[in-house]
Amino acid sequence: MKDIEEITQTLVKFRNERDWEQFHNAKDLALAINIESSELLELFLWKTANEADIEKIKEELADVFAYAFILAEKYNLDVKEIILDKVKRNANKYPIEKSKGIVKKYNEL
Amino acid sequence: MKDIEEITQTLVKFRNERDWEQFHNAKDLALAINIESSELLELFLWKTANEADIEKIKEELADVFAYAFILAEKYNLDVKEIILDKVKRNANKYPIEKSKGIVKKYNEL
Amino acid sequence: MKDIEEITQTLVKFRNERDWEQFHNAKDLALAINIESSELLELFLWKTANEADIEKIKEELADVFAYAFILAEKYNLDVKEIILDKVKRNANKYPIEKSKGIVKKYNEL
Amino acid sequence: MKDIEEITQTLVKFRNERDWEQFHNAKDLALAINIESSELLELFLWKTANEADIEKIKEELADVFAYAFILAEKYNLDVKEIILDKVKRNANKYPIEKSKGIVKKYNEL
Repeated sequence: MKDIEEITQTLVKFRNERDWEQFHNAKDLALAINIESSELLELFLWKTANEADIEKIKEELADVFAYAFILAEKYNLDVKEIILDKVKRNANKYPIEKSKGIVKKYNEL
Repeated sequence: MKDIEEITQTLVKFRNERDWEQFHNAKDLALAINIESSELLELFLWKTANEADIEKIKEELADVFAYAFILAEKYNLDVKEIILDKVKRNANKYPIEKSKGIVKKYNEL
Repeated sequence: MKDIEEITQTLVKFRNERDWEQFHNAKDLALAINIESSELLELFLWKTANEADIEKIKEELADVFAYAFILAEKYNLDVKEIILDKVKRNANKYPIEKSKGIVKKYNEL
Repeated sequence: MKDIEEITQTLVKFRNERDWEQFHNAKDLALAINIESSELLELFLWKTANEADIEKIKEELADVFAYAFILAEKYNLDVKEIILDKVKRNANKYPIEKSKGIVKKYNEL
C-alpha cells in the first residue's frame, strides 16, 4: 500500500471509531487546519527559527497534515495529483529566469 | 518511488531551481503554512460548507500541503511516521468510549 | 463622541448601507479576523520586521481592527472594558518579578 | 483622555513593566495577532455561531485587540484614522448599488 493511502486509512479509521465524521464538514476542517497551523506558528513566536522545539514541531505539523489529509479525503482528492498540478501552475507563474533568488509575488515580477 | 518521496523531490527541485532555499527558514515556512491555510479558509467565508469552489479548494489545499512537506523536509522528518505517532497519542488522549460522538477537547472529557 | 463609539458607528453604517449584517454571524466574523490577520502576516513573509511596507500594514491592520470592532458590536461588548479586564488577568498570570525580560507562557514560568 | 489613548497607555505600561518591548518587533506582533485570532476561531470549531462561549470570546477578542493596538503603537499609527481611511477606500471598492446584499469580492462584482 502506498504512503498516502496508509496515512489516510489510519486517519479515517481513527475518525470513524469515534463517530466524528458528523462534525467534519469541509468548512470546519478548514478552520481546524488554520487552528493547527497557528499552534505550529506559536512555537516560533518571539524566537528565531532555530530556537523552536523540534519535538513540538513534529506534533503540530502532524496535526496540520492530519486535517489536510482528512479534508482531501472528504473531496476524494488525490493529494499527489493536486500538488504536482499546483507545482506546474507555479512553474508558469514563476519562470526560473525571472524568479531565481527573488521571492516577489508573481504579479510583482 | 513512494508517493511522499516523489512529492518532496518535486517540491525541492522547484525550490532549488529558483534558489529559494535561502528564504525558507523554518519560521517563515510556518508563516507560509498559515497564510496558505487562511487562503483556503477564505473560500468558505460567508458561505456554507457546500458553497465553496472545489477547483480553488484543490489549489489552496495543495499550497498548504506543499509548504508542510517543505517544512518536514527541512527537518528531515518522515511525514508518515510523525502522523502515525500523533494518531497513537491522540488515541490515548481520546479513548473511544469517552469520545464517541463528542468533540470536546481531551482535557474537558 | 468617543473614539471607539465613532469607529463602531462608521463601520455599522457601512455594513448596513450594504445590507451585509445578514452574513455577519459571529463564526464568519471570527473567520474574517483570521483571514485579515493572515494578510497582515503575509506582509512580513520572507522578510525581516523592518522590510515590510508600512502603507500596506496600515490597510491590513485596519481590516483586522474593523472586523474585531464589528464582532464586539455584535455581542454589545465594551472594547475598552474587555481589554482592561484581560490586562488585569494577565497581570496575575504574569507577575512582574517572575516575567521581567522573559516571554515564557505563564504555565512555564 | 480618549478611549484608545487609555487602552494603549495601559498596554504599554503592562509591557514596559515586564521589559517585553525587546521581543515586540513588528513581525512577531503580526504572528501574535494571528495566534490570538486562531484561539478566537477555535471557540467556534465544530459549532454553530451561537454555541460559542461568550466569556471565552471576550478574552480571546481582547487578546486580538491588545496585540493590534500594540502593533499600531509601534508604528505610531492613529487607529481611528487608519480605520476611517480604510472604510473610505472600501466604499469606493464596494459601491452600495453594486454590493447591496452581495458579499462577492470587489474584483468579482
